[in-house]
Amino acid sequence: MASDLPGEFALIARHFRPLAGPGALDLQDDAAVLAPPAGRELVLTADAMVAGVHFLPDDPPDLVGRKLLRVNLSDLAAKGATPLGYLMTVSTPRDTPEGWFVGFAAGLADDQRAYGISLLGGDTTSTPGPITLSLTAIGHVARGQAVHRAGASAGDGIWVTGTIGDGALGLAVRRGRLADASGHLLSRYRLPQPRVGLPIAGVASAGMDVSDGLVQDLGHICRAGNVGAEIEAGLVPLSEQARAAGPEWLATCLTGGDDYELLLAVPPAREAALQGQAKIADIAVTRIGQFVAGTPRVIVHGADGSPMTLAAGGWSHF
Amino acid sequence: MASDLPGEFALIARHFRPLAGPGALDLQDDAAVLAPPAGRELVLTADAMVAGVHFLPDDPPDLVGRKLLRVNLSDLAAKGATPLGYLMTVSTPRDTPEGWFVGFAAGLADDQRAYGISLLGGDTTSTPGPITLSLTAIGHVARGQAVHRAGASAGDGIWVTGTIGDGALGLAVRRGRLADASGHLLSRYRLPQPRVGLPIAGVASAGMDVSDGLVQDLGHICRAGNVGAEIEAGLVPLSEQARAAGPEWLATCLTGGDDYELLLAVPPAREAALQGQAKIADIAVTRIGQFVAGTPRVIVHGADGSPMTLAAGGWSHF
Repeated sequence: MASDLPGEFALIARHFRPLAGPGALDLQDDAAVLAPPAGRELVLTADAMVAGVHFLPDDPPDLVGRKLLRVNLSDLAAKGATPLGYLMTVSTPRDTPEGWFVGFAAGLADDQRAYGISLLGGDTTSTPGPITLSLTAIGHVARGQAVHRAGASAGDGIWVTGTIGDGALGLAVRRGRLADASGHLLSRYRLPQPRVGLPIAGVASAGMDVSDGLVQDLGHICRAGNVGAEIEAGLVPLSEQARAAGPEWLATCLTGGDDYELLLAVPPAREAALQGQAKIADIAVTRIGQFVAGTPRVIVHGADGSPMTLAAGGWSHF
Repeated sequence: MASDLPGEFALIARHFRPLAGPGALDLQDDAAVLAPPAGRELVLTADAMVAGVHFLPDDPPDLVGRKLLRVNLSDLAAKGATPLGYLMTVSTPRDTPEGWFVGFAAGLADDQRAYGISLLGGDTTSTPGPITLSLTAIGHVARGQAVHRAGASAGDGIWVTGTIGDGALGLAVRRGRLADASGHLLSRYRLPQPRVGLPIAGVASAGMDVSDGLVQDLGHICRAGNVGAEIEAGLVPLSEQARAAGPEWLATCLTGGDDYELLLAVPPAREAALQGQAKIADIAVTRIGQFVAGTPRVIVHGADGSPMTLAAGGWSHF
């Protein structure tokens, strides 16, 4: 792991070196060495987070570290991959207090233990701008078994994990537009729960994690597989707190994003297997509709059975 | 590859998707799938570059892209690894002109062809700060054969590739402190030449790339291997342009950094093999001293044989 911050050598070594795992060469080399377990191949994903864009400068740094790791672990989960480790680059203003690094590293350490992974390498630099973080997460999956966005067929069930919309409502809470007496919604926004415990390889025909809004992301699976999708708004699993927000927030739940739940296409013959795996993993799964032949588009049926019209479709992906 | 830049979807897809290679799933998935070739293991390294710190905002964007890639390829070369591909996160201000992306992607495309690698995935985000780039490079090496910083023994020769100091002098040129009629020094600063063509696995007992200054980086190898090092300043290979700068620039050459040459420990029995490999690869290699038993420290012998005193020792690494 390299650094261009002379004098901060000791500070950074103190906070990041304890996060290093096998293959990281104690962060004293400029590169890590890694082999996937026998019969497995690697899955790699990278995401960046910028203060003022993806988190606020005064957000608790332990939560920033954990969110950075978890958004990437969520991408691994969506491929059916088991997390292995990560590389990270950290660009911080020169006046970043040591306490920020302490908290950031503590959050990473907690989640490393929770997910059984470690830091493999990276870089620290200064920046005249906001704190900017980039993380490359590495996992492994049985050879040829990674789940892709493409692969859904007409007739496959559409399944989601957990509850949908809490993250988007949490953002509304943070913006002062919604009450959140229990703190559940804000907590879901701040700290995703990547579904890495659910082994979807060999079960789902296609999948991704919901980060840009359920409807938008379902559209991605439709376009990748050249199929349509029909879902029932009334079947989409909402938390007790999301239901309490009232029906005027339903569209936000369906399009808002920041869910980090899995959205899966599952052939009918494997839906029981999914439910069995979910029970073992203690992760809720819900069937919300099915893929249909025809134009790649998403139809959302409302309570009266007629299609709902939804405005904003989330963020762009490529 | 994900993006939080709605509306810029088409722009970014146009520039980055053509860079995608096998395993990248056309950047339409959130993760790449990769297996090392049979008998090989993976080598991973990550570096960040920030406008105003590692490059200037008005630097030609193609050179920025190529430098970002090459500093990472240099780390792979120092492990004896063959480059395979890379993931990249790109955080840009909203007013970044399309021309910047065009140039940046063109530079990456050129070097992808030159080094036989491709883009595997990543993320684009906006930032209220300077352009911030992070790249994770992935290579492969014969299992157990990666070269590490640790491993040098007393008696091993100290070898470097190419010429030392051009990068540091190029920075002085850029700052207006030195003339550079041919443009050679500035070009060496702007565009590193990673020595990926030199197969050092199985030849070098230890090594790293010189990015923080020859003396500083040699000190890292000494501490990692618990050996001393003695080099002759007069043996350190300098370019014609560096020699022309005059002896008052010698200390800058030895401590300045940004060389991206390989610094290697080579047991006497394998020095002929190194020279043979270097001849095949058409990369100059020069023996500048040897490792010695004792305290991990670097002694630089000047022209008169007495140790030189060098001020600043480069940047901190951890």
